[in-house]
Amino acid sequence: LEEQMAKWLRVVNQVSRSSPPADRMPNFALESQGASLVSTRCSETYRSRSACVSFLGVPLWYPSESPRIVIQGNPPQAGRCWPFHGAQGTLVIALSHPARITHVTLEHLPVVNAPSGRIDSAPKDFSVHGMSTETDEGTFLGTFMYDRNGDPMQTFQMPNPAEAVYTFVELRVLSNWGHPVYTCIYSFRVHGHMDSYR
Amino acid sequence: LEEQMAKWLRVVNQVSRSSPPADRMPNFALESQGASLVSTRCSETYRSRSACVSFLGVPLWYPSESPRIVIQGNPPQAGRCWPFHGAQGTLVIALSHPARITHVTLEHLPVVNAPSGRIDSAPKDFSVHGMSTETDEGTFLGTFMYDRNGDPMQTFQMPNPAEAVYTFVELRVLSNWGHPVYTCIYSFRVHGHMDSYR
Amino acid sequence: LEEQMAKWLRVVNQVSRSSPPADRMPNFALESQGASLVSTRCSETYRSRSACVSFLGVPLWYPSESPRIVIQGNPPQAGRCWPFHGAQGTLVIALSHPARITHVTLEHLPVVNAPSGRIDSAPKDFSVHGMSTETDEGTFLGTFMYDRNGDPMQTFQMPNPAEAVYTFVELRVLSNWGHPVYTCIYSFRVHGHMDSYR
Ligand SMILES: [K+]
Ligand SMILES: [K+]
Ligand SMILES: [K+]
Repeated sequence: LEEQMAKWLRVVNQVSRSSPPADRMPNFALESQGASLVSTRCSETYRSRSACVSFLGVPLWYPSESPRIVIQGNPPQAGRCWPFHGAQGTLVIALSHPARITHVTLEHLPVVNAPSGRIDSAPKDFSVHGMSTETDEGTFLGTFMYDRNGDPMQTFQMPNPAEAVYTFVELRVLSNWGHPVYTCIYSFRVHGHMDSYR
Repeated sequence: LEEQMAKWLRVVNQVSRSSPPADRMPNFALESQGASLVSTRCSETYRSRSACVSFLGVPLWYPSESPRIVIQGNPPQAGRCWPFHGAQGTLVIALSHPARITHVTLEHLPVVNAPSGRIDSAPKDFSVHGMSTETDEGTFLGTFMYDRNGDPMQTFQMPNPAEAVYTFVELRVLSNWGHPVYTCIYSFRVHGHMDSYR
Repeated sequence: LEEQMAKWLRVVNQVSRSSPPADRMPNFALESQGASLVSTRCSETYRSRSACVSFLGVPLWYPSESPRIVIQGNPPQAGRCWPFHGAQGTLVIALSHPARITHVTLEHLPVVNAPSGRIDSAPKDFSVHGMSTETDEGTFLGTFMYDRNGDPMQTFQMPNPAEAVYTFVELRVLSNWGHPVYTCIYSFRVHGHMDSYR
């Protein structure tokens, strides 16, 4: 039994130290690594803030938040997110390096930390697109659902093998979990392989 | 045995991944969520810094620290704290949302990371008060002791059920663990329920 | 068996919660605690940046990185490092307090997070020196190797007992893991005991 337990302790040890999948892959959408936020297709999303603030009468998010917060690699902290008006919003990110894309990760505030006890402002359905230039129409890579009952950090695998190399990625949020006024994005990552290092 | 162990592995897994209680509750004193630091009742606490620095002859804390550091949600890092002169000090925080208060959390630098091997500048006894306006005299919610031999992050439950809704919280540090010149606060959180979402 | 398992659960618990050795010692090279970056002996290391950027044609690190990033206590994030030209580079740090030095810690980006899948820009061999003034020639404390296949955070014990008290520490990187153009330092820590609290 002792021996069995020693063996098992090693397993438990590994399990308990293991980090989530997203933390074990490169992130080509990370600002410190050279990625940058290029645009939000709909510029009105930038101005949603005052509307949101006046909606509940209290300031709801970080004074200096901008879409850049989404690619800065911070652990989620209540209010440190990019809020946009309504339930549809778009981000275009210039990757740090041209890459073959295998996964993306979307992270939201854990529901236990939400002041309202709900995360109805979390994104629900979203699609991901790859582009070679900032303005080309892009290639559809997949559509996914962020599960509000799942882990706060959710990683999604692209359904098709990553053959093409992209320089830009577009995230299109298509719906949220019910918030009537705004949607918040805390963190978005793009995983894959560098062109020259497949 | 195998089956028993599989069951147990799940338990261990949960235990090892579980975060401290304070990380599993909303924090209504978090700046990024809309809280703000309103005042320190005794303005002389702001000027303690030069006294402290000259006391030991070396700079002891972060050049730009202010009381705001206490509500910014950072993990404790040596010197990233708000130091005040003496052993009594007060912070008044405008909560992000009016709330029923159930717990507060006080966090200090782990003693193993203290350059002196001691945390005698940690707060010891403190009281918590709820207010509806910044200047009303407040309602006493409880008195507590931060245990310098305990976990660096300590959560305290209010002794009485949280019936009233408060917009401001006052933290009054009443004593420290023996430092003759100053006291440092690393992080303070206020937990509870939003008025409209009990 | 139940009893045995309960005992064991406590062990597992401790193991799984235990932090790496470097996180259980004071760090006298931490900026927030009063340490400061005094100089890099070879000023050309500061200008390596544009060379590196043009080498791969994409921005490779954080726009505002400076050697100070190395002593700011951040968890490693791709690109948040101090890059210097070539494979040899030097940092001189004024410690937060005069100290007897027992260990140093060097940390690099985990290889799984490197966009290229390699960390050939990580330091390999390095030496550590203690000084009483910024310009004295220093006392050699030891030479060490950062293992690119080891844990991202590696702590090294000084071979000799820490008897002398130093006010400055010099880190000399002597080689890297093969990158032909630059070397990156993410984090460097100096552990020991304060003079007056041995
Ligand atoms: K929410
Ligand atoms: K202390
Ligand atoms: K590298």
